[in-house]
Amino acid sequence: MKAPRRKFLALSAALTASCKKAEVPSESGAHMRPYGERAPQEQSVRIIRELTKSPGTGSSRTPLHEIYGIITPSALHFERHHAGVPAIDPATHRLLIHGLVDRPLSFSLADLKSFPSLSRICFLECGGNSVGDYSGNHQPTVQGSHGLLSCSEWTGVKLSRVLAEVGVQPDAQWMIAEGADASMMTRSIPMEKVLHDAMLVYGQNGEALRPEQGYPLRLILPGWEGNTNVKWLRRLEFTREPAQSAKETANYTELLPNGQARQFSFVMDARSVITSPSGGMKLSRKGFHEITGFAWTGHGKIARVEVSVDNGQTWALAELQEPVLSLALVRFRFPWRWDGAETRIMSRCTDETGYVQPTHDELLSVYGPNAGYHYHAIRPWRVLPSGEVVSHV
Amino acid sequence: MKAPRRKFLALSAALTASCKKAEVPSESGAHMRPYGERAPQEQSVRIIRELTKSPGTGSSRTPLHEIYGIITPSALHFERHHAGVPAIDPATHRLLIHGLVDRPLSFSLADLKSFPSLSRICFLECGGNSVGDYSGNHQPTVQGSHGLLSCSEWTGVKLSRVLAEVGVQPDAQWMIAEGADASMMTRSIPMEKVLHDAMLVYGQNGEALRPEQGYPLRLILPGWEGNTNVKWLRRLEFTREPAQSAKETANYTELLPNGQARQFSFVMDARSVITSPSGGMKLSRKGFHEITGFAWTGHGKIARVEVSVDNGQTWALAELQEPVLSLALVRFRFPWRWDGAETRIMSRCTDETGYVQPTHDELLSVYGPNAGYHYHAIRPWRVLPSGEVVSHV
Repeated sequence: MKAPRRKFLALSAALTASCKKAEVPSESGAHMRPYGERAPQEQSVRIIRELTKSPGTGSSRTPLHEIYGIITPSALHFERHHAGVPAIDPATHRLLIHGLVDRPLSFSLADLKSFPSLSRICFLECGGNSVGDYSGNHQPTVQGSHGLLSCSEWTGVKLSRVLAEVGVQPDAQWMIAEGADASMMTRSIPMEKVLHDAMLVYGQNGEALRPEQGYPLRLILPGWEGNTNVKWLRRLEFTREPAQSAKETANYTELLPNGQARQFSFVMDARSVITSPSGGMKLSRKGFHEITGFAWTGHGKIARVEVSVDNGQTWALAELQEPVLSLALVRFRFPWRWDGAETRIMSRCTDETGYVQPTHDELLSVYGPNAGYHYHAIRPWRVLPSGEVVSHV
Repeated sequence: MKAPRRKFLALSAALTASCKKAEVPSESGAHMRPYGERAPQEQSVRIIRELTKSPGTGSSRTPLHEIYGIITPSALHFERHHAGVPAIDPATHRLLIHGLVDRPLSFSLADLKSFPSLSRICFLECGGNSVGDYSGNHQPTVQGSHGLLSCSEWTGVKLSRVLAEVGVQPDAQWMIAEGADASMMTRSIPMEKVLHDAMLVYGQNGEALRPEQGYPLRLILPGWEGNTNVKWLRRLEFTREPAQSAKETANYTELLPNGQARQFSFVMDARSVITSPSGGMKLSRKGFHEITGFAWTGHGKIARVEVSVDNGQTWALAELQEPVLSLALVRFRFPWRWDGAETRIMSRCTDETGYVQPTHDELLSVYGPNAGYHYHAIRPWRVLPSGEVVSHV
């Protein structure tokens, strides 16, 4: 028990020792509940930003700095809606599959649940996460800057399995996916992705999909920008050409420095961020602190995460928490001894393709300042001598 | 798109095709919520059995037949309480560590959270799960028979890391763990397990531990019977001898055929069960159905799961859903074509130690009919020609 160790425990805390046994409650506790709730002292919430007068149009952000492990509680999963959260009756909801198919069919939820099922833990990130960082409008907290990011265990059926029933024709090149919300959220998906790993999902973290995540049915395209994972899914049409819908022309394209817009930029590139300590927190003392955060990539597995505690001069490997799953959030941890001086701390990840998360300047040299989507640069946090952690500007 | 395939989709369902586009909702949906809730149509609940007049004393069971994937929603995690659910203030709660240690200390939650953290997905099963099966009192549903079983991503600190601060003395052989509920739930844990993989846990499925699972602090002993994973943990005492507490003498021991009681039978043996189709369900038609369920073992990883659809005459390998994690629930799936005849379906698993889940008769030949705890035999479900699925008696 005498192994050398880093002192994570503050001496002040340790000296509060008391060897008195605590008092025993004399009364029995509360009754059980059929469906549990969190403790009343726990108050983590999503930050909601409604963008229009239309109810529920905008986004809400996951409190990443308060999340443990890799699973995001469904109640705190981020949202991005274009016409609020529709109330859909699962008993009557249907998915129509038509277009360039041999047998156009419509499927009830019960139909889809009769297929072999599949579960997968994967991240979901809005393509517009951290949009402000392009222009240097750095949000002060990680919830504000990175909170359009979550990770769930999704359950449903492999889309290719369902498509075998309708018989997609050889000249189909695109699948147009349409949601049942009032915005008729519509995206065009290339057949390669459709057949590779697309899922029709009705389960999330062990129970039914939550209303805000598309109840009763959504598309999941592992590793692809959130907007393509169409919620409240009601229609799939197979076509030769993409739909050129509003959400793939007016939005979710990147205006590059050469004046051209990059369209259909589906895959989320390798990214990481330190969630603790992060902006808005305060270190209570010098000495050891655990640095922890998330890494993720739409290109497969995270290969490694490095942490710098000296403003990027030197880097050291962080520990990756098992399991390290393809297309899922990866939790990294790094022990840090803070000497009380001002510094900047940051993480950078490398994925299994060898792609290294870029710095802000490196990213902008390729994407320019007006891309809007797919920001994924290294995010430093500045630690002040007071222990306060602030956004790096 | 013409690959041979099993027809999971009933023809009747497929013929409901309609190529009309659905109507578009004309009104925006609902506002976002800071902390989400499930859809009102979803009504899965724990079955509660209160055993005494004392509130909250008894158990509640996870609806395993309605769970997707491997993560149990925290709201549906099983419970077994001996004096209800105490309301504990996390701001004042402390963990006292004393006995055969160099420096007895008491730790606040903040102290414990300052240590390096750790997350692990693992199952928890009550040692008394399926107690009725010993005597042939087979519950009619899998929730009734196996529902004292759940699986979460737990986050906390490795206990051995905290113990390095107090300096456990060489003559300590046992750790006495005590809960802060009115029953003062107390169990004795051998040092080998304490130092190997015991965790002090404050997080569950991404957020704070739920009240029913020990908020704000519990012990997690991966793979060991639920009762040893002491909730509302407030005291750890290091001793030469076990405490011989009520819950390790009067309960949680197995009375064997030779008249001796097996004590300290901590590890949960390899077990599996089909959750769908299972007792209380009804197959709507002949043809293909997915058989799915869980396998788990306290001895490491599940190596394989076999399924029999002919009353145990022949067996075939089921597919194991990735990730297959040590000491976690494993989801298995098996495609089955039901010909409409009466039969019995069942699963059996083998773990990485080579242990094969026994039949009921095999188990009783070793444990006898009065063991009470650690029942883990193969569970058949009888499928009637009507499609009704019933307990096998």
